[in-house]
Parts: sequence; C-alpha cells; structure tokens
Amino acid sequence: MSSILSAKEIKEAIKDLPEWDVEGKAIVRVFEFDDFEQAIDFVNGVAELAADADHHPDMDIRFNKVRVILSTHSKGGLTEDDFDLAERLDTLVDA
Amino acid sequence: MSSILSAKEIKEAIKDLPEWDVEGKAIVRVFEFDDFEQAIDFVNGVAELAADADHHPDMDIRFNKVRVILSTHSKGGLTEDDFDLAERLDTLVDA
Repeated sequence: MSSILSAKEIKEAIKDLPEWDVEGKAIVRVFEFDDFEQAIDFVNGVAELAADADHHPDMDIRFNKVRVILSTHSKGGLTEDDFDLAERLDTLVDA
Repeated sequence: MSSILSAKEIKEAIKDLPEWDVEGKAIVRVFEFDDFEQAIDFVNGVAELAADADHHPDMDIRFNKVRVILSTHSKGGLTEDDFDLAERLDTLVDA
C-alpha cells in the first residue's frame, strides 16, 4: 500500500502528467470524445484498468465528456497509486 | 419533441417516481450497488436505454453508487422525455 505524498512530492509527480490538475486532495482530468457512446467506451476502459489496479476513480459523465477524479480515500489524500493509475488511463486515449 | 413542464406538471409527474427527487431543473436518483463492477454494469444499462431514447443523462460514479441526473438541456428544463427515461431506468434495478 502506498503512503500519502507530501505537497513537494505531488508537485514533482504531476509534472509527468501534463493533462492532469491537482484539485484539493485529488488529481483530475477531463477526457473529451466525439459522442456519448465513445465516452461510455472510455468509462469501460477505465473500469477495466481500475479493476486490475483495485483502485477506483470517481467519474462524472457529461454527454461526450468524462471527468476522472483520482484520490486514495482510504488514506485521505494522494498516493503513488493515483499517479500510477492516471498514467495508465492516459494510455487509453493518448497515442 | 417534448416541451418544458410547468412546476405543477413536475409536481404531478414526480409522484410516479418515488425514488427520484427534483433538484433545480433536473430530477436525480442515486442508485447503489454491492461494488464498483455492478455500478459499471448499471452505467452500461443506462447507456443502452439512453441511446434508444436519444436522451443522455449525466452520471456521477462514486465506487458502488451512481448518481443519475436527468434534464433536457436543449430546452433548459424538465420535459416528459426526462420522466419517461427515469421510468425506464428504474426497470434496470427494481423488480
């Protein structure tokens, strides 16, 4: 299990995730698609990676946009697990 | 295409949907499941009914809970389309 990252560690880790923003105790990225169906396909891709990682991001579906919110609720903040999963989620859309 | 319902019509229509609440210009229900996988299965069920109806609810996934928000954005409020789809979504979980 990962432990909570310090503000300094977060600042360093987020550099490798240019599409993600730190928001409070979470990292967030909005993924945008052509339509609702593609957004749902993406949600299923996230669900698969989430199951593999046993780490489950929050997702807000707004038609063709999916806002993904990663935080380690059991630890009350951001851990390496969040940054690892964010990196894997990026591979679903970025070439 | 349906037209915007009046406050009185909304009050009448929501009586048939005991699990749903009116929140501003939307109707909302939180669906709760045993785990994340079941929540994702439900999201896919919603997506199928949404595609059939060409009406796409917002969904907020929080581990085993899915908050569904229905509103007719193109009309700027609640229409019969929202209540019709809500009734169909209820059939995904209620016997």
